[in-house]
Amino acid sequence: MFNFSYQNSTRILFGQDQIKQLAELITPEQKVLLLYGGGSIKTNSVYQQVTAALQAAEVIEFSGVEPNPNFETLMRATDIARREKIDIILAVGGGSVIDGAKFVAAAALFEGDAWDILAKGANVQQALPIGCVLTLPATGSESNGNSVVTRYETKQKLAFSSPWVYPQFAILDPTVTYSLPPKQVANGVVDAFVHVMEQYLTYPVNAPVQDRFAEGLLLTLIAEGPKALSDPQNYAVRANVMWAATMALNGLIGQGVPQDWATHMIGHEITALFGLDHAQTLAIVLPALMQQQRSQKREKLLQYATRVWQLQHQDEERLIDEAISHTRYFFERMGIPTRLADYGIQAEAIEQLVSKLVQHNMLALGEHQDITPEVSRRILQLAL
Amino acid sequence: MFNFSYQNSTRILFGQDQIKQLAELITPEQKVLLLYGGGSIKTNSVYQQVTAALQAAEVIEFSGVEPNPNFETLMRATDIARREKIDIILAVGGGSVIDGAKFVAAAALFEGDAWDILAKGANVQQALPIGCVLTLPATGSESNGNSVVTRYETKQKLAFSSPWVYPQFAILDPTVTYSLPPKQVANGVVDAFVHVMEQYLTYPVNAPVQDRFAEGLLLTLIAEGPKALSDPQNYAVRANVMWAATMALNGLIGQGVPQDWATHMIGHEITALFGLDHAQTLAIVLPALMQQQRSQKREKLLQYATRVWQLQHQDEERLIDEAISHTRYFFERMGIPTRLADYGIQAEAIEQLVSKLVQHNMLALGEHQDITPEVSRRILQLAL
Repeated sequence: MFNFSYQNSTRILFGQDQIKQLAELITPEQKVLLLYGGGSIKTNSVYQQVTAALQAAEVIEFSGVEPNPNFETLMRATDIARREKIDIILAVGGGSVIDGAKFVAAAALFEGDAWDILAKGANVQQALPIGCVLTLPATGSESNGNSVVTRYETKQKLAFSSPWVYPQFAILDPTVTYSLPPKQVANGVVDAFVHVMEQYLTYPVNAPVQDRFAEGLLLTLIAEGPKALSDPQNYAVRANVMWAATMALNGLIGQGVPQDWATHMIGHEITALFGLDHAQTLAIVLPALMQQQRSQKREKLLQYATRVWQLQHQDEERLIDEAISHTRYFFERMGIPTRLADYGIQAEAIEQLVSKLVQHNMLALGEHQDITPEVSRRILQLAL
Repeated sequence: MFNFSYQNSTRILFGQDQIKQLAELITPEQKVLLLYGGGSIKTNSVYQQVTAALQAAEVIEFSGVEPNPNFETLMRATDIARREKIDIILAVGGGSVIDGAKFVAAAALFEGDAWDILAKGANVQQALPIGCVLTLPATGSESNGNSVVTRYETKQKLAFSSPWVYPQFAILDPTVTYSLPPKQVANGVVDAFVHVMEQYLTYPVNAPVQDRFAEGLLLTLIAEGPKALSDPQNYAVRANVMWAATMALNGLIGQGVPQDWATHMIGHEITALFGLDHAQTLAIVLPALMQQQRSQKREKLLQYATRVWQLQHQDEERLIDEAISHTRYFFERMGIPTRLADYGIQAEAIEQLVSKLVQHNMLALGEHQDITPEVSRRILQLAL
């Protein structure tokens, strides 16, 4: 196990009817910027529950945060936060709204050009407090310090991290996910699954607590994910998916172990060029990457095959082949195709994707930094 | 899964050479009360590392905190904390020293008689900041808000909990555990194991993340515990035991699930009357309690048998019998006998123990509150 330093101070309020707790979490003296996306929270009663709980507080609303939150939109919210002397930002939505809230919270108190937080990695020294009501289990943003923002004008998708932007609290009510479209449920499950894999499927460093926890999350997502699609009003299933997705990227399972993240980096280019959903790109890239990196990841692939998929064979190559197949079939069972061709992307696109990776300096990805652009090309070829 | 609210803000600094970080964690302006127990930290270099890192700060030492910290001793430390206007308490030791630091931190800022914190459950509204350097993995106190204090004068062993006494930081350097006596290593492993069992071996509430995490900790302790005894200088083994013991009682695995804790309550009476180590009492009570409560715990016992001990039989009663035997043998393999008779305690003692439980109002223990004094008597008879 490597050395690590870990802190996660977000209070999780989990379960049915927890949105009511907002009345205690936010005091009447606090001026609230209520940030949300489209109008879905108005049709599933979440908006009504939130505003009812906040009736004693002064609330300014800002809607229209996009699925990939746009820098320009967030700067308008930042102007309001500054002008109105907002005390706390309440994000109601999925990862994009929460990521957006994090940027606004940091930008509102940033001296200088807030674009530098994203473009130059300028050090965030303070931020407005953030709370959130999660409506889509997927990204883990409700309980970490990470944020991804896109500048639509220049097509730049950039990230920042800061301990200052951990939400102070996150309300996770599984019932608010009942009305999600199946595609979003599937995307969320696959996103969480790949978050775990990026922190697990590397090489062994004798860290059994982290390994067992990661395997526990994978087993949970495999068992519960399909049920979330077939039985959408099942509280226990929704609760288990929601809690697994939070635990998948709240930092815990990645402490003291190597991490990969090449699947995410290659996937980002597919989204940027062809507009696929983030989770679709992960479902395409991960099985191909497992195949390409099968010797580097051999020990963990065998562990994954036996512990997660309960596979048993004498032939280790067959074990690895089947572990990869099972991963692919799981994504497809969730309704997410796993081949570039399934989305109409042909071999000609690969050079374009590789040159974008080079342009973005993605020259040495993965836990061994051995995924060069040439290796990324081979991964994409395996993903056709 | 039940609703829950969870927050754990302790920063964990894990690994070799992390004690040096004290120089950053404590600023030169802070006045430190350095709390420790006997002199063992002076013989294993921990004291030297701590004082070297703190050379810029003003440090007042208070040693002599007992293995079961004594209220009178802690009140002397509290007087010093008040008189010297201490800014932060640094606990260097195991669970007892950290528990003691929590009481001192709360008592120093408590208005009124600090005994009320323990005896009357008086609400702790503030506390001095606490940091700790853990030397004995066992209790989880380094990353939770719980404290147990004993008043030697009256033989009262009382607990309090408060969000104010979570350590701000906890330094976990596995190398400082190399020099622990084998008995303390064994006690720590068994203590952590039973902490997990108290939160796991109840009844199913469809909470697979919590179950898988608990099983992961049990599997880790079963695999690594004996190695910590046979190969005491093995860094990876020490690290895995240390991280498992922290995760066992930092609150995470118990969120949203029923909890038992009857083994602890019955065990406390054995310690109080006969002076056995806490972990010895747990090793005695747990197998007997599993046997006595086998029908109430049936589903979880079967899950434990198959997932933790990898047992396979058609006969479910045999599965449960073997799961209990394996648990007992694990404790004995750690060098901790599991029968009252092994400690010279005979059947006559049982009435005495049961009457103490009655005297302490332990009338309805366990996840179903069905462990009456009569059931406790049967458990103790099975433990002879």
